[in-house]
Amino acid sequence: MPIESLLSQKRKQVDKEIERYFPKNPTESDLRKICGFPRYAYDLPSAKAALHTPIWELLDRGGKRWRPALFLMVAEAFGKKSQTLLELSIIPEVIHNGTLMADDIEDNSDFRRGKPTIHKIYGEDIAINASSAMYYLPLLALFKNKSKFPQTTIISAYEIYSQEMINLAYGQSFDILWHKGKNANVTEDQYLQMCAFKTGTLARMAAKLGAVFAGASEKNVQLAGRFAESIGVAFQIQDDILNLTAKEDYGKEIGGDISEGKRSLIVIRAISKLEPQKRRRLLEILDSHTKDNFKIGEAISLIRGTDALEYSSKCASKIVADAWIEFSKVLKPSKAKKQLEQFAKYLIERKV
Amino acid sequence: MPIESLLSQKRKQVDKEIERYFPKNPTESDLRKICGFPRYAYDLPSAKAALHTPIWELLDRGGKRWRPALFLMVAEAFGKKSQTLLELSIIPEVIHNGTLMADDIEDNSDFRRGKPTIHKIYGEDIAINASSAMYYLPLLALFKNKSKFPQTTIISAYEIYSQEMINLAYGQSFDILWHKGKNANVTEDQYLQMCAFKTGTLARMAAKLGAVFAGASEKNVQLAGRFAESIGVAFQIQDDILNLTAKEDYGKEIGGDISEGKRSLIVIRAISKLEPQKRRRLLEILDSHTKDNFKIGEAISLIRGTDALEYSSKCASKIVADAWIEFSKVLKPSKAKKQLEQFAKYLIERKV
Repeated sequence: MPIESLLSQKRKQVDKEIERYFPKNPTESDLRKICGFPRYAYDLPSAKAALHTPIWELLDRGGKRWRPALFLMVAEAFGKKSQTLLELSIIPEVIHNGTLMADDIEDNSDFRRGKPTIHKIYGEDIAINASSAMYYLPLLALFKNKSKFPQTTIISAYEIYSQEMINLAYGQSFDILWHKGKNANVTEDQYLQMCAFKTGTLARMAAKLGAVFAGASEKNVQLAGRFAESIGVAFQIQDDILNLTAKEDYGKEIGGDISEGKRSLIVIRAISKLEPQKRRRLLEILDSHTKDNFKIGEAISLIRGTDALEYSSKCASKIVADAWIEFSKVLKPSKAKKQLEQFAKYLIERKV
Repeated sequence: MPIESLLSQKRKQVDKEIERYFPKNPTESDLRKICGFPRYAYDLPSAKAALHTPIWELLDRGGKRWRPALFLMVAEAFGKKSQTLLELSIIPEVIHNGTLMADDIEDNSDFRRGKPTIHKIYGEDIAINASSAMYYLPLLALFKNKSKFPQTTIISAYEIYSQEMINLAYGQSFDILWHKGKNANVTEDQYLQMCAFKTGTLARMAAKLGAVFAGASEKNVQLAGRFAESIGVAFQIQDDILNLTAKEDYGKEIGGDISEGKRSLIVIRAISKLEPQKRRRLLEILDSHTKDNFKIGEAISLIRGTDALEYSSKCASKIVADAWIEFSKVLKPSKAKKQLEQFAKYLIERKV
């Protein structure tokens, strides 16, 4: 099955599981399943309006659901396949969408997946609270299924989850300070670390959880995590490339990263390659946080005058290829193993 | 020892533990302890500027640290006392401060503990990210100490933590919608539920964790949680009273709840008791979200013309007294038991 079809098939299954734990139209009885029996009285319409509706507004806009797919492929590659895992695969996906909602507020973004961002529609207060809720709601699947695994597995799962959430905040801390122009000399290694912590973190969480629930050894859990983190880093680099080069079907603003003043791998490379006058001009546009399309176009032209786009693209491919060599060694031949390889290629070669 | 001295003594110990896990001035080696060895390279100054500095800016402003004190008293009342527990007591406190940071953005508050709110100083992006980080950072103490407890205890701790974080988001969802005037007919029971989920949640988390780590039975863990939740509810009602009546040493804006249009127990009671014309005027001021001190004073006068303040105060006392009767039955006589009783009285009778 081509990877696009696989993702689209899994997507429907994953969304059904998310809705089972967190319905679009909750009843009083759903709230009792989520929060327990109330001591006094719930306000169901408020819970729906401030949590269920905005969260599903974002989830229903799409996204590839590749983190649950990765979770499931890794578990299958370690020889485990079950309905229980499908339920647990919602964990990295719901959290990922929560981080998008928070990022959009932090970056003051206007659009996400082709529509206004959640905080622009519902207000920042609702979006901040809903994004936090999304970090915890999918754990309901872990509460329910814990008896199906050894206790050490459950503890490992919580530790992976919590540690990755910490790393995510550190990755975001780098990114935020750079947006503010507080580190004009971000290095390639610092940028790649930020990607490993921002985009890589939820991929790593997905793969490590898949491996842990499949009963993989500690070493193999780490290798799965490293491979997924690499995909995440490459995915982010590819995202940065698309942000400057995409033509259509791209849900976000073209050149939005220029407005944000983002020091992506592309920008870092371009800065290191441009002659002083052009370098100063690029930095000037980046630091002005302009939304003027003419200036954004000028910045993209300056970048295109260097090898930054090709360099970044090659860098992304190499990171994934190297990690796959290490990870594939510990996997027996299987359909899931083949899918994992295809999947990595698909993600870093995507055009939208 | 009077309860104020006990709290002030514990405060120093708790802050030392927080700083051990999350230093004010982190080194590269601290970051490795928190996030692991970097795959590429950290940006230490950015991590410090966007996480450590703003988080300590809030923590250093004070706060009573009563949640760790409650955690420790409950554990001691169940016969457990150890240095390990002191480390774990940071969990509800750091999370609590994270929720304050997020609440201040959501409520658009200008002041917290007598100084500008964190997002007003450092920006919303930093505050949103730092508040999320605070939900996970104290779990580092749980990672480190897990081998000292049975595995079921560790799993229970994670479940209590995660469930309470979910409940917190639901409590906040009610509160946000009410601020927006989306439910003009909030009932007393809905208000008390919101308090149980907002203020009660972290108190309940603290007490339940204290009980779980002390090896208490499931039933006793629930009773400890119920008692703490009651303190939280009463604390919130008392906070609402102080918001309208405090004179000095009160870190927040007097009457800020009026500007927010908050439907507190006091307001719900006042609305039910006022004659139609005065009721309309009170609702008008609440829904205007005014910061005009004259109008805020007028609203407070209208409320003072009813029994709402006394009614709310009595309600708070009764909630705690009833829960103490149930909880105290399962505790053997001890110093910690006496302290718990004093502590509950102290919190609901406080003047600042």
